[in-house]
Amino acid sequence: MAREFMGKDFLLYNEPAVKMFEAAEKMPVFDWHCHLSPKEIYENSEPRDIAELWLGGDHYKWRVMRSCGIDERLITGDAPGREKFIAFASCMPSLIGNPMYHWCHLELRRYFGIDDILNADTAESIYERANEKIRAGGFTPRELIAKSDVVCLCTTDDPVDSLEYHTLLQKENLPFRVLPAFRPDKALSIDLPSFLPWLSQAAKVNGREIDSYAELERFLKARIEFFASLGCRASDHGFSYIPYEEAGKDELEEIFRAAKSGRAVPEAEADKFKTALLRFLAKEYAARGWVMELHIGPMRNNNTRMFNTIGPDTGFDSIDDQPVARKLSRFLDSLDREDSLPRTILFTLNPRDNYVLGSMLGNFQSAGVQSKIQFGSAWWFNDNIDGMRAQMTALANLGVLGKFVGMVTDSRSFLSYPRHEYFRRIACNLMGELVESGQYPYDEKALTKLAEDISYRNAAEYFGIG
Amino acid sequence: MAREFMGKDFLLYNEPAVKMFEAAEKMPVFDWHCHLSPKEIYENSEPRDIAELWLGGDHYKWRVMRSCGIDERLITGDAPGREKFIAFASCMPSLIGNPMYHWCHLELRRYFGIDDILNADTAESIYERANEKIRAGGFTPRELIAKSDVVCLCTTDDPVDSLEYHTLLQKENLPFRVLPAFRPDKALSIDLPSFLPWLSQAAKVNGREIDSYAELERFLKARIEFFASLGCRASDHGFSYIPYEEAGKDELEEIFRAAKSGRAVPEAEADKFKTALLRFLAKEYAARGWVMELHIGPMRNNNTRMFNTIGPDTGFDSIDDQPVARKLSRFLDSLDREDSLPRTILFTLNPRDNYVLGSMLGNFQSAGVQSKIQFGSAWWFNDNIDGMRAQMTALANLGVLGKFVGMVTDSRSFLSYPRHEYFRRIACNLMGELVESGQYPYDEKALTKLAEDISYRNAAEYFGIG
Amino acid sequence: MAREFMGKDFLLYNEPAVKMFEAAEKMPVFDWHCHLSPKEIYENSEPRDIAELWLGGDHYKWRVMRSCGIDERLITGDAPGREKFIAFASCMPSLIGNPMYHWCHLELRRYFGIDDILNADTAESIYERANEKIRAGGFTPRELIAKSDVVCLCTTDDPVDSLEYHTLLQKENLPFRVLPAFRPDKALSIDLPSFLPWLSQAAKVNGREIDSYAELERFLKARIEFFASLGCRASDHGFSYIPYEEAGKDELEEIFRAAKSGRAVPEAEADKFKTALLRFLAKEYAARGWVMELHIGPMRNNNTRMFNTIGPDTGFDSIDDQPVARKLSRFLDSLDREDSLPRTILFTLNPRDNYVLGSMLGNFQSAGVQSKIQFGSAWWFNDNIDGMRAQMTALANLGVLGKFVGMVTDSRSFLSYPRHEYFRRIACNLMGELVESGQYPYDEKALTKLAEDISYRNAAEYFGIG
Repeated sequence: MAREFMGKDFLLYNEPAVKMFEAAEKMPVFDWHCHLSPKEIYENSEPRDIAELWLGGDHYKWRVMRSCGIDERLITGDAPGREKFIAFASCMPSLIGNPMYHWCHLELRRYFGIDDILNADTAESIYERANEKIRAGGFTPRELIAKSDVVCLCTTDDPVDSLEYHTLLQKENLPFRVLPAFRPDKALSIDLPSFLPWLSQAAKVNGREIDSYAELERFLKARIEFFASLGCRASDHGFSYIPYEEAGKDELEEIFRAAKSGRAVPEAEADKFKTALLRFLAKEYAARGWVMELHIGPMRNNNTRMFNTIGPDTGFDSIDDQPVARKLSRFLDSLDREDSLPRTILFTLNPRDNYVLGSMLGNFQSAGVQSKIQFGSAWWFNDNIDGMRAQMTALANLGVLGKFVGMVTDSRSFLSYPRHEYFRRIACNLMGELVESGQYPYDEKALTKLAEDISYRNAAEYFGIG
Repeated sequence: MAREFMGKDFLLYNEPAVKMFEAAEKMPVFDWHCHLSPKEIYENSEPRDIAELWLGGDHYKWRVMRSCGIDERLITGDAPGREKFIAFASCMPSLIGNPMYHWCHLELRRYFGIDDILNADTAESIYERANEKIRAGGFTPRELIAKSDVVCLCTTDDPVDSLEYHTLLQKENLPFRVLPAFRPDKALSIDLPSFLPWLSQAAKVNGREIDSYAELERFLKARIEFFASLGCRASDHGFSYIPYEEAGKDELEEIFRAAKSGRAVPEAEADKFKTALLRFLAKEYAARGWVMELHIGPMRNNNTRMFNTIGPDTGFDSIDDQPVARKLSRFLDSLDREDSLPRTILFTLNPRDNYVLGSMLGNFQSAGVQSKIQFGSAWWFNDNIDGMRAQMTALANLGVLGKFVGMVTDSRSFLSYPRHEYFRRIACNLMGELVESGQYPYDEKALTKLAEDISYRNAAEYFGIG
Repeated sequence: MAREFMGKDFLLYNEPAVKMFEAAEKMPVFDWHCHLSPKEIYENSEPRDIAELWLGGDHYKWRVMRSCGIDERLITGDAPGREKFIAFASCMPSLIGNPMYHWCHLELRRYFGIDDILNADTAESIYERANEKIRAGGFTPRELIAKSDVVCLCTTDDPVDSLEYHTLLQKENLPFRVLPAFRPDKALSIDLPSFLPWLSQAAKVNGREIDSYAELERFLKARIEFFASLGCRASDHGFSYIPYEEAGKDELEEIFRAAKSGRAVPEAEADKFKTALLRFLAKEYAARGWVMELHIGPMRNNNTRMFNTIGPDTGFDSIDDQPVARKLSRFLDSLDREDSLPRTILFTLNPRDNYVLGSMLGNFQSAGVQSKIQFGSAWWFNDNIDGMRAQMTALANLGVLGKFVGMVTDSRSFLSYPRHEYFRRIACNLMGELVESGQYPYDEKALTKLAEDISYRNAAEYFGIG
């Protein structure tokens, strides 16, 4: 007989998994990488309706709607929220096997207490009931975060950010911590049109022009110190591949000058600049015990027409397939040789590289930190049952699953915390399978520890948020 | 207890799957990409024996035989049919886990009513009984197609083809439609020895020499119009990777002249030529609502000795591993920017690229067509249970499985239609698993619709064969 | 209810698998590729303790310990064996899903009769009991090999090796055969610092300087003859990718001279040298009916700091991601064209290439040998349940699983033979699943033959050790 849809033991297909999840679900959430807005957390406004919450900025949902042939007016256009919500609901029955199907129903259940199946028939009624709930209160950012048992979250902030909302939030008496995380992608992307505008912003923050590579390093170091003063523990970097091209100081200054003067920077030179600057930053992170997150593999803004219409991060990114092993190895080795390799988390967007990254970890582990080099959880296009199983299976085989720092939402939405629950169910089920099938002993103490460690404790210890 | 070998519920391991397959098996077959010969369909001859049907041209079977150390004389050589059949049968027991094992037994069951296991012991008897059946009639191409509940099939035709058999077939009163499909690989392969001979043929069809790139475009456009006049709805292209190199008109003419004069065309120039011509063709397809099929990833004719002996398409091809993401993205974007991107189906021969293609789709979907950019079903070396599950799982996670246009035989054999049954069983089982395990609701109406849509309806609507 | 941990039917999840394993476990072991020391087999010393056996040279275990943050002193340093063993045991509970967890417990059970779970609590007691067993005898190399039902093993030997211990061993009255295997990696690695030192050693063995490429070929041919005189049947080669760049004799001599004079050899020239020399060697192998093993894909010595401290093969290697299809195809074709392609086994370290290699086989199979081109079993980082299933599934779909030459330990440890048991369980379970699920008939004779063939008989026949 078929199991109940998303019942109590959702995704828990064996008895050890059920037991392990009992331990896992009691652990708090430490969401060490997300894209929540500190401003929105500070301002703490009530959302208008579920259409705003769900379809206001979620490019995952937008992609699904486009794949079903829905008109852009009902996606990012000026159609009323009700119409957008109904259009989205009409796509749901086709989403068999898509994580969106589970995320939506988890959110309806956990935040709205609505157990109905969402589809074209139920859309109107669910829309009404959800909005009633919202009007009844409890849906401000802070309420949603607190309700989700979050003890700490790390946002994603540009070095030029004033962190004013972080400063303000730290004066509030919140039941959870909000920490900044340092994301200098624009400073590194010397080959993108965003570089010069960023440099202008940076000059303002710096109080004087950034007219040399050396000055750029000085500026970023000062910002790292400022971020650290607000409790920052993590940096984050996005790359389609990790570059590694050595260059002398003079050459770096020349590349910088050329870029500053508006000349296009060819890929080989950009890679030299990025290598040097990333190495500089990594040393600063290492010196402060920060974690360096490397997100490898996206190919962004593939659709020029839509980029020109509605801009970046709107659902037109996909997976790149550049080689990654050799340069990444040289980059990490260059830091290790100088004893300045920080705690590092390697994420891949291309699941074909799970084994390349999973085996890379072991090259640079070292004494005193439990899995200092981590394999980041299944990310973005892989953030689904199959992707998570593939990532954890690779890690288990190639490294040490029991030391895994686990899940992050990586999300812009205040309703995304059930993804931690989703991950915990999948992780417990995977480990439970190994017990159920006689591949690991049924040792309740060991299993409870594994479930708790992967759900929360490893990450808390690794990032030092204790 | 072990299940019956290929019993009634073959590959259906859960109750929802059994239910879904009841709906799926009632749907007709639309085989929108195959390599059947319109001439053979027109001439409609009786086959000589099962050796001719099975071993006359099936390079899948030839490969299996070579892998078992069988002498070429018994494969493509002059050995009698009986001996070849027995040699092939002797390989069968070793083929555990190979789709050939299922295809053969499905064909024996569905067309010959023979339920025996094929091996060295049973080969003689099966050979006799199968040939008796053939002699009793019902094995002409048209009878086999009709018996397989095919409503429409698309062949694969060169632009220079006169389509005379298509013309003749359309005057017959057939219970199914046979449409041409446009496959201009030889026109695009300016770097292959086949280019100049093809150009000579084309000149004859054209009525005058094709002495410029512009004239080549004109010729192909005229052929597209001719194909369209016979109901063509699809084009097809094979590439080891999709090229993208821009070039001006003058440069294209120069490359064309160089090739025409017999000079070898280096890869970079060939890529410019292919990019321009493929873009031109794509616009013509888009203007007519045709579908553009892109088959990406083979490495052909690896064995020079055998190529010189028995020619192409004889079982000496394998999987290439070139990067595909960036150029494919630019190519599709270049069309999308000019609002001339046709309905496009992306196939990969290398399953490691399932996630690259699966995520590429979402970059270029658009309003009014349900999944305008499609992820083609598991193809050639992937046309097996594991490959199909991997392709459908990737599509489900990254796109919208419910809008999938589904299966094609891609076959040269009139006995290959049970592969649609095979696919439907696998698809229903995969979706049924999600229901059985509480990941999708047990909503019979929705499940029936999914089964029917993926088996037939999506493809019929997508290609507009209504 | 959970199965017993590593019980009698460990990894056998269906009844046909249990039956097949009954046949498989009776077959002897032919370990046709390992890194055992012929000297140690000849000298046949008692081990000091389990710490020496387990942690004296096993870089798999060292990696695990580093991943758990253990200090290097307790890994490769001067800490006492007891402390090292306890430190290792403390990592065990975190190794859920890692093959090390099974290997350790299999070794404790099969060689020491210890059924306890190894962890920090049990470490002391297990350490004591294991050492007691060792002191009671039966743990010399020859005893361990004989006890493991090994009929033949092939070591890995450099061309300059005198094979003195092989000569001595062949005079002993052993219950198993020990054969040399020819591994000329250092002769081929003209671009590594090891080349010139190797050339000096070779000159000594040669009796005169190797001052030309031609002389190098002559030398290696003489060594092949010498290896053959001691019963060698196999060669082995490690490459991150198989090169293919053609070059004339003069160019090869020039490259050789440049290298000999101490100049750095750029990759393109090294590839020409390697291509020519590997082709030369392959022809010699083919002429003698030897097997050529190609191990493709490692990226070695990634950690410079540790390489400088403790040298190569200490756990700092990982998986490379170079393209492999095109050059490998051309290399094999170049031999096939001249009718000098030896029996060849292709291994990949990067599992993303399973389908590239699995489909490559079929390009070069030929009459008279059952699967002359073989897909090597899941290797090194893939030598685990998931990796073996992936490799066998790819082989089954793309080639002929029933002709597979199966498992090797690839190990430096005399305790590693349970990995053959591990493999056989996994293989039987995989094939049994296909029977259990109605995908292959429950024909006991055929299944027994498959189990026996893959466990032993195919390899014995393929290598001709009869």
